[in-house]
Amino acid sequence: MVTRKDVAERAGVSVAVVSYVMNNKSNVKEATRNKVLAVIEELDYRPNLIAKSMKTKKTQQLAVLVNNLGNPFEAGILISLEKSAMERGYFLFFQKFQQDQEESLKSLFAGRVDGIILLGQSLSITTVEYFHLQGIPIFSIMEPSFNEGREVPFLDIDWGSAMQQLFVHLKSCGYQSIAYLTANEQMNSHHYEVRNRALMQAAKEEDIRVDELIRVDVCNFETAYSHLLARWTAQPAFSYQALLCVNDLMAAGAVAACKKLGISVPEQLAVAGCEDILMSSQTFPAITTIHYPREAIGEATLERMHALIQGHTVTHVTLANNLVIRETTS
Amino acid sequence: MVTRKDVAERAGVSVAVVSYVMNNKSNVKEATRNKVLAVIEELDYRPNLIAKSMKTKKTQQLAVLVNNLGNPFEAGILISLEKSAMERGYFLFFQKFQQDQEESLKSLFAGRVDGIILLGQSLSITTVEYFHLQGIPIFSIMEPSFNEGREVPFLDIDWGSAMQQLFVHLKSCGYQSIAYLTANEQMNSHHYEVRNRALMQAAKEEDIRVDELIRVDVCNFETAYSHLLARWTAQPAFSYQALLCVNDLMAAGAVAACKKLGISVPEQLAVAGCEDILMSSQTFPAITTIHYPREAIGEATLERMHALIQGHTVTHVTLANNLVIRETTS
Repeated sequence: MVTRKDVAERAGVSVAVVSYVMNNKSNVKEATRNKVLAVIEELDYRPNLIAKSMKTKKTQQLAVLVNNLGNPFEAGILISLEKSAMERGYFLFFQKFQQDQEESLKSLFAGRVDGIILLGQSLSITTVEYFHLQGIPIFSIMEPSFNEGREVPFLDIDWGSAMQQLFVHLKSCGYQSIAYLTANEQMNSHHYEVRNRALMQAAKEEDIRVDELIRVDVCNFETAYSHLLARWTAQPAFSYQALLCVNDLMAAGAVAACKKLGISVPEQLAVAGCEDILMSSQTFPAITTIHYPREAIGEATLERMHALIQGHTVTHVTLANNLVIRETTS
Repeated sequence: MVTRKDVAERAGVSVAVVSYVMNNKSNVKEATRNKVLAVIEELDYRPNLIAKSMKTKKTQQLAVLVNNLGNPFEAGILISLEKSAMERGYFLFFQKFQQDQEESLKSLFAGRVDGIILLGQSLSITTVEYFHLQGIPIFSIMEPSFNEGREVPFLDIDWGSAMQQLFVHLKSCGYQSIAYLTANEQMNSHHYEVRNRALMQAAKEEDIRVDELIRVDVCNFETAYSHLLARWTAQPAFSYQALLCVNDLMAAGAVAACKKLGISVPEQLAVAGCEDILMSSQTFPAITTIHYPREAIGEATLERMHALIQGHTVTHVTLANNLVIRETTS
């Protein structure tokens, strides 16, 4: 079995330096760090796995790193995760974190969790590498827009196909141009970038014009509502016939803004969202959206996480999606 | 400073027995346990505080025990908590648990958190006592319906006054009798019992008849919708003029059920909820409800929790509430 000493010898550094690299200390030159990481990779040195093979000690705890607690979409996924975790004897805890707190996750999780589930979250390459070395697998719900270095396995719907279905529907209603309301490019909404790319591609393929790309900092109801209210008050005439939103909360905010300004939906403006949260079926008019099968996520995720903890590799999972046509498009 | 030995001598037991009691082992007779606990209380022996006073070692971590992740009401509170925690330098993690997992919380939290926040949750008397002995304070968001033994400080609105405002409004609309849709009596919805008692008292004071008390197992949209649909299909004639729901999710389910059955709201049936979640302003018709000031909860809770961690005592907090009159009552 590979030891820390083997790594040190092969990399031509001291055992202490290997430890520094593994504990992510800053007192190691970049070149040295890279060399040590390359050797660790080459020899597949995983210290915690060795300790585990001796003790087979598991915590039966999983951490879920959540992104946006205010979105009922995530809450629905947490419920599904929790149900499946309980059935498999795992204990879940949830955590939201800011990028600048990423370091503290290491001391918080090391030795305390068997695995980490990302929910619309992302970790830096070095953090992913750190947990790999600790023998703590990571699985992501929704494809990270950025998944370089050691790739994190994920599950997601096929956003390309989902967006195409939506555009085919819009075309059948006679719409030729849209506006798209989404998140500013930033780490904590990175998973929306996957939807953005899929939308742009589908628009091109289906020959629908994206007249305006509207980006906001926070993807919730209130921000969409106030932003659109201000925008449409300033410029009452818009050229697009439909507004697509990166999530349903924002689509609901758009419907509320239309109601406030007397813009009739869908006659003057069609609206559609993504995710299919409960509220989108209860607004007036009810919102057309891409259904994301939340109830299937718990079991699919726990099955993969369990396999990863057992030392198996897992592949990405594509969930079935479907278009839910309601009253905001016709 | 009081030591474990002092406790043992005063209680007339060995130091080991004091340890057993403090670690909640089952090998101690009930009478002995009670005697030791009484002495611990009398001498105010708090071992972890002693260790802390020597090391002043804090984790800066707080655990939040949540109840119903599917209710956006709780999600809104979590966001508020998280914002205030960050401002004060605390790191939060959230956990849902079943009553039968309560034991595992002890090993999970001991030494890892500075305090525990309950969010619509409850802990048994012995668990509350255990964390007290560990020097880990507990604060509850929403009054626990059951708060015996070592009382847990809490914040909540004055449900008595809130329900009375609602009934005064209903009377002014001419309604004289209601049905009330709430949770079955069970541990994991215990915080609704506080609302139930307040409603019954207010109905009596305002002389409004509670024609039917409808209890369901799960307090969400889907359960309210399907239960009412079945109920009203079987018995299309009901005597009450208004339906009150213990939370807005259920009120939204009720509005959807009315829509499905062609019962016009509020002409044939008025509907009202509690909490004022976002969705209740977006349904058609929009729902009258009791506003719960979620945005104020984070700071109020963190301020008290910080004081508790510093060894201060805190009193219960009453938040301001107000009635939001919308379209489902008139």
